[in-house]
Amino acid sequence: MKLGVIPGDGIGVEVTAEALRVLDVVVPGVEKVEYDLGAARYRRTGEILPDSVLHEVRGHDAILLGAIGDPSVPPGVLERDLLLRLRFELDHYVNLRPAKLYPGVRTPLTGEPEIDFVVYREGTEGPYTGNGGVLRRGTPNEVATEVSVNTAFGVERVVRAAFERARSRPRKRLTLVHKTNVLRHAGGVWQRIVNEVAAEFPDVTVDYNHVDAVMIHLVTHPERYDVIVTDNLFGDIVTDLAGAICGGIGLAASANVNPERLFPSMFEPVHGSAPDIAGQDKADPTAAVLSVALLLEHLGETAAAARIEAAVRADLAARDPENPGGTREIGERLATAVA
Amino acid sequence: MKLGVIPGDGIGVEVTAEALRVLDVVVPGVEKVEYDLGAARYRRTGEILPDSVLHEVRGHDAILLGAIGDPSVPPGVLERDLLLRLRFELDHYVNLRPAKLYPGVRTPLTGEPEIDFVVYREGTEGPYTGNGGVLRRGTPNEVATEVSVNTAFGVERVVRAAFERARSRPRKRLTLVHKTNVLRHAGGVWQRIVNEVAAEFPDVTVDYNHVDAVMIHLVTHPERYDVIVTDNLFGDIVTDLAGAICGGIGLAASANVNPERLFPSMFEPVHGSAPDIAGQDKADPTAAVLSVALLLEHLGETAAAARIEAAVRADLAARDPENPGGTREIGERLATAVA
Ligand SMILES: CC(C)[C@H](C(=O)O)[C@@H](O)C(=O)O
Ligand SMILES: CC(C)[C@H](C(=O)O)[C@@H](O)C(=O)O
Repeated sequence: MKLGVIPGDGIGVEVTAEALRVLDVVVPGVEKVEYDLGAARYRRTGEILPDSVLHEVRGHDAILLGAIGDPSVPPGVLERDLLLRLRFELDHYVNLRPAKLYPGVRTPLTGEPEIDFVVYREGTEGPYTGNGGVLRRGTPNEVATEVSVNTAFGVERVVRAAFERARSRPRKRLTLVHKTNVLRHAGGVWQRIVNEVAAEFPDVTVDYNHVDAVMIHLVTHPERYDVIVTDNLFGDIVTDLAGAICGGIGLAASANVNPERLFPSMFEPVHGSAPDIAGQDKADPTAAVLSVALLLEHLGETAAAARIEAAVRADLAARDPENPGGTREIGERLATAVA
Repeated sequence: MKLGVIPGDGIGVEVTAEALRVLDVVVPGVEKVEYDLGAARYRRTGEILPDSVLHEVRGHDAILLGAIGDPSVPPGVLERDLLLRLRFELDHYVNLRPAKLYPGVRTPLTGEPEIDFVVYREGTEGPYTGNGGVLRRGTPNEVATEVSVNTAFGVERVVRAAFERARSRPRKRLTLVHKTNVLRHAGGVWQRIVNEVAAEFPDVTVDYNHVDAVMIHLVTHPERYDVIVTDNLFGDIVTDLAGAICGGIGLAASANVNPERLFPSMFEPVHGSAPDIAGQDKADPTAAVLSVALLLEHLGETAAAARIEAAVRADLAARDPENPGGTREIGERLATAVA
């Protein structure tokens, strides 16, 4: 197994170190190539993602990414030209984000909600294409457009992946999330394709929710969701709320997957580089560690993945929520637990 | 005062009756013209919003709307051609949505959050313009686009209104909500205009949050928001979450405002027509009643508006959350309380 590692910026560096610590215990001897992409390199050389690096990265089995972004770089530059570029160039059309409330974890929700769903967020089109432009920039007559591009090809492949996942889960439920009553062009193709693919999966119960209604359900009845399939932007929004109700994005893992394995998939915590707490051993590395579990699962190392998840589950159940420990301490605890 | 009333569909009819009951007590003798727009009329005549009605409605001082939408009509038809058409034709560029957690109201959030902010949602452009289209519809090569249109003109006027509101509030804080790191064309004009207008409001503290981060903050630290200004789609999403954490959209009022009063403003609960509970005296009319308070405030009837808010506040504090009463009962209680 050959792994590309992009620790990135801020806490990305710290949590990646702990994720690798755990990986080295469950699957010793993985070959790793580290790339110093991110704010520091950009400041030093002006490079964000050199073609040579992209070419090299394409040859790995998977990529582990920490987090990208730093106040020293204009907002959006690294996000678009590094993170999103990787997702697009490596055709990560499934952005997979599990939402699970583990026992013992504090949720901001009252009651004792049961939360266990996965979001299949489309990763290569929708409003994330960069299409659109600006006319008369900086004038009182400026017009800025942003074009969401949705293709039957792009929608069908993620919808199909989501149905397959739904079929494999006990509840076998799939919910399309969109805003079809307003975005009728894009909503039309999403709804049509979900209807069509549904015919091939008669065992899966299919449902539809407007994205605004999802906001309500997630804080009042999150147990209703099993598999959510949605577009790039709605997926971004919904998964941050999902992370928050599952105890915070310090616990939320994600996978950017190219299911055909034409390109390496990329695994990253949902959280960002959090410059405000960077370098202080404060970040929770659990999301990065769980991202390693997703990585191993993707590569067929199911038992190793399960060991990590079990270690995390036990650690979360035993943690003092007021005092979970520092980045390194949590990483060491998890590494010991998986041993 | 001449009021156009559009009860609409489902529970819209029931809650509007209670809202008018309260209005008649605080401001007796308001002239009302009721319009039977909605699903029933569409089924009967095929008409959604005849030009003659639109013309007549333009002459009123304000519009009170219940809710629109029914399973008998294809999804989106009435929403777009009635509700959104009214917002666009009457140039309701400020979609004002207060989020306040009243004492005694149950929130799905733990702790005792303090929630008191207002959302200034742009109401006439963004992804709601209907721009875009479909190529090769229904084929494997379908391409559907959805174009968000953002003009300096359109952004500035809602941003300015939001700054004015922020200045009038004790905390004087304004947060722009967008996704500038990805939607850089649209995000650019929003951020630039907020920066420019901020220079005229040195007493207002200005902040920026990505829409995904707002998801997290709203369930963990909702007290941080005072005035939020955002685009049409993000505003739709954020205000449903805001409603949910303030006790549910059965309590969430909204105003579609044309601040220059070139056209009548329109007041409506945030909730929909809820066909599943329609006609059962189950809907909470509080959001519709609070929408009347917004209407009166807009028309300068500040004292009458305050009486309604005080009555609602007292009623909410006294309610049994398990058993708040039926639609009519709550309406009668509020009407008695304002008397
Ligand atoms: C950093 C940003 C570009 C990214 C996104 O919007 O996809 C992030 O929010 C995420 O969810 O991974
Ligand atoms: C019904 C729908 C068109 C509408 C919207 O998206 O604006 C509703 O969700 C709202 O928030 O008023």
